[in-house]
Amino acid sequence: MSRPKLRAPAETIELPEGFRAGGVRCGIKKSGLDLAMIASDVPAAVAGVFTTSTFVGAPVEVSRERLPRRTGRAVLVNSGVSNVAMGARGRRAALAMARCGANALRCDEDDVLVASTGVIGQPLPLDKIRAAVPRLEQGLARDGLERAARAIMTTDTVPKWAEARTRIDGRWVTVAGIAKGAGMIQPDMATMLSFLFTDAAVAPRTLQAVLRQVADATYNRLTVDGEGSTSDTVLLFANGRAGNATLRSARAAGTRRFVRALSEVAEDLVRQLARDGEGATTLVTVEVSGAKSPEEADRAARRIANSLLVKTAIFGRDPNWGRILQTIGAGRVRIDAQKAEVRLCGVPVYRAGRSAGPKARARAAKGLAAPEVAIEVKLGVGRAAARMFTCDLSTDYVRINAEYTT
Amino acid sequence: MSRPKLRAPAETIELPEGFRAGGVRCGIKKSGLDLAMIASDVPAAVAGVFTTSTFVGAPVEVSRERLPRRTGRAVLVNSGVSNVAMGARGRRAALAMARCGANALRCDEDDVLVASTGVIGQPLPLDKIRAAVPRLEQGLARDGLERAARAIMTTDTVPKWAEARTRIDGRWVTVAGIAKGAGMIQPDMATMLSFLFTDAAVAPRTLQAVLRQVADATYNRLTVDGEGSTSDTVLLFANGRAGNATLRSARAAGTRRFVRALSEVAEDLVRQLARDGEGATTLVTVEVSGAKSPEEADRAARRIANSLLVKTAIFGRDPNWGRILQTIGAGRVRIDAQKAEVRLCGVPVYRAGRSAGPKARARAAKGLAAPEVAIEVKLGVGRAAARMFTCDLSTDYVRINAEYTT
Repeated sequence: MSRPKLRAPAETIELPEGFRAGGVRCGIKKSGLDLAMIASDVPAAVAGVFTTSTFVGAPVEVSRERLPRRTGRAVLVNSGVSNVAMGARGRRAALAMARCGANALRCDEDDVLVASTGVIGQPLPLDKIRAAVPRLEQGLARDGLERAARAIMTTDTVPKWAEARTRIDGRWVTVAGIAKGAGMIQPDMATMLSFLFTDAAVAPRTLQAVLRQVADATYNRLTVDGEGSTSDTVLLFANGRAGNATLRSARAAGTRRFVRALSEVAEDLVRQLARDGEGATTLVTVEVSGAKSPEEADRAARRIANSLLVKTAIFGRDPNWGRILQTIGAGRVRIDAQKAEVRLCGVPVYRAGRSAGPKARARAAKGLAAPEVAIEVKLGVGRAAARMFTCDLSTDYVRINAEYTT
Repeated sequence: MSRPKLRAPAETIELPEGFRAGGVRCGIKKSGLDLAMIASDVPAAVAGVFTTSTFVGAPVEVSRERLPRRTGRAVLVNSGVSNVAMGARGRRAALAMARCGANALRCDEDDVLVASTGVIGQPLPLDKIRAAVPRLEQGLARDGLERAARAIMTTDTVPKWAEARTRIDGRWVTVAGIAKGAGMIQPDMATMLSFLFTDAAVAPRTLQAVLRQVADATYNRLTVDGEGSTSDTVLLFANGRAGNATLRSARAAGTRRFVRALSEVAEDLVRQLARDGEGATTLVTVEVSGAKSPEEADRAARRIANSLLVKTAIFGRDPNWGRILQTIGAGRVRIDAQKAEVRLCGVPVYRAGRSAGPKARARAAKGLAAPEVAIEVKLGVGRAAARMFTCDLSTDYVRINAEYTT
């Protein structure tokens, strides 16, 4: 059940016009880069989506409070300590971290957003961050995004980045982004963080609407273990340096092209995240159709993507349609057993109320050996559809999460 | 992380007055007993609760249809094949199985309920059942419940039984029951089945109300992997042979005593089920209090009990309060971080907004080595409470569910 080791994306990337990034080691983690900054040379429109948890970290609180300004210059991120469950002290630390970034960039402290990922319940080592930020700022470069991607990693085995380009108003517009880890590790919280940058000119209100729409179709369709972290954060900066006429309407042709490019980057990152889920050996895409309502389609897709039994079956390369139908049923999702169909890697394994037989089963089992597998389910009762990205559940997931104790 | 092997309950049990049971091998499973029957000498009041799945097996359909009769004589159960996802053919097989039991007992076929557990998508071997039922009927005995408990096992490592006694109207009344496995195994569905028997005289309507109430507090508080099977079934037979005045009101003192005895048996069985969850090394009880509403208390308790991260931490004997608070937050359950408290095995590990420190952590870690551990969480925002029973998540769970492929 082993597969080739994951690698960082083959292509290197360059930030859009007017952005610079960097990553340094400040000494919070035991080894490796652990402090990243990405900054725009000019004030940029900023949009963000955050964890919906009722128990959130101080950096999420601080960044969320700053978003109504709708413009900003930079994001400063550390890995190793998440600054969660630290009370008033945590809040002071998050504010101080932002101030530290603002001092280096010589900008308003409200123009710097922050994010932290790592151990919870431990104080943020502000001294280390303060000492490293000037060096980090001096090293910021147009080609520094990969170092930033490495500096935000916790349990990720590879850094993650993606980019896309589109033409708006005859101008080339670039979207580039990085992301890190879904799944948790003791006592780290492997928060999902993703930071996106574009040189498109987009009005802040439109930028926020577009990010929400794209996040709902990508980041919010990802599950590794059904958990949501205290610190999940996606930020999007748009600095307008591409020179297009500012996008102000969600319906404009330019905005639609921008959404496509942004979606492409976000989905690429989400697939990288699923593939690198803790202990994962396979990226699993789940497509549910024929549901009675969008809510039931979503529920069915989420149940399949979170089912231990489905995920362990995928790990075992077992074309087990019974478990898929069982978890849909347990979720009280309406299904017509006679009209329903289950396909694994394109092979129908259940249809017309029963198994498609041992030959189909054998073909599906072969398909399941690939590094990316598809589960498609038609419920046969309506027209709603939903999609999820996940990974399989391996013995390594349990080992990672049980044995990495302090 | 290994623990002493589980054993069957130390005490043997005898069925209440007027019941006889047995278990034989009819040859569906590769080895061992696989056909059980428990019968009342006289028509008994019958109550039942079933899976809420929208994808259910034919035996559930058939037994559920018969319950409005509110009386019955027996339940006939096979293990090895679940008779799920077999369409009209499955329904005919479940009806034929009941008829077969009725012939042997010389009673109305509607007076026999059926249950099946095992592989899905395969035809029920009716010939084997038909051939074995006369022998099974001839062997029915007052002390046959343990054989019946063994004959309904699938992935269980030990048989499960329990009993309790109480006095109603000056008469001794007995409740006895058996149960089998929660958690699934490929391509078996390790359905939760439980059958309860009492010689108390209880009006059918009251019996159904009482079973619903007790099931909600016991069977429905159990989770091994967050799944619900297509075949989950709990049946309760009351044949009145104890000679008490028939219990007709839920509020009568006798009914309250009966409920206590029934709850004792059900909770005992549920604990045995959790302890024997697939790959489980520990029984985990989760107690949430201080919630804003009963619904939020329930949601928090279920999230903790189903959280992969919490369950793998328990497997790793890691007093990881961060994961507990994180999964509560991800469930959007209201919590006051300052007033909240987390206790592991009685030791407070989080309170007043932060960690209780390394000493508390060490004491809690010691507690987690026991074969039964308690997670208690006070949310600090209200007065509602809820409880769940579960087990830890081990590498063996994944191995069992990934590697037992056909």
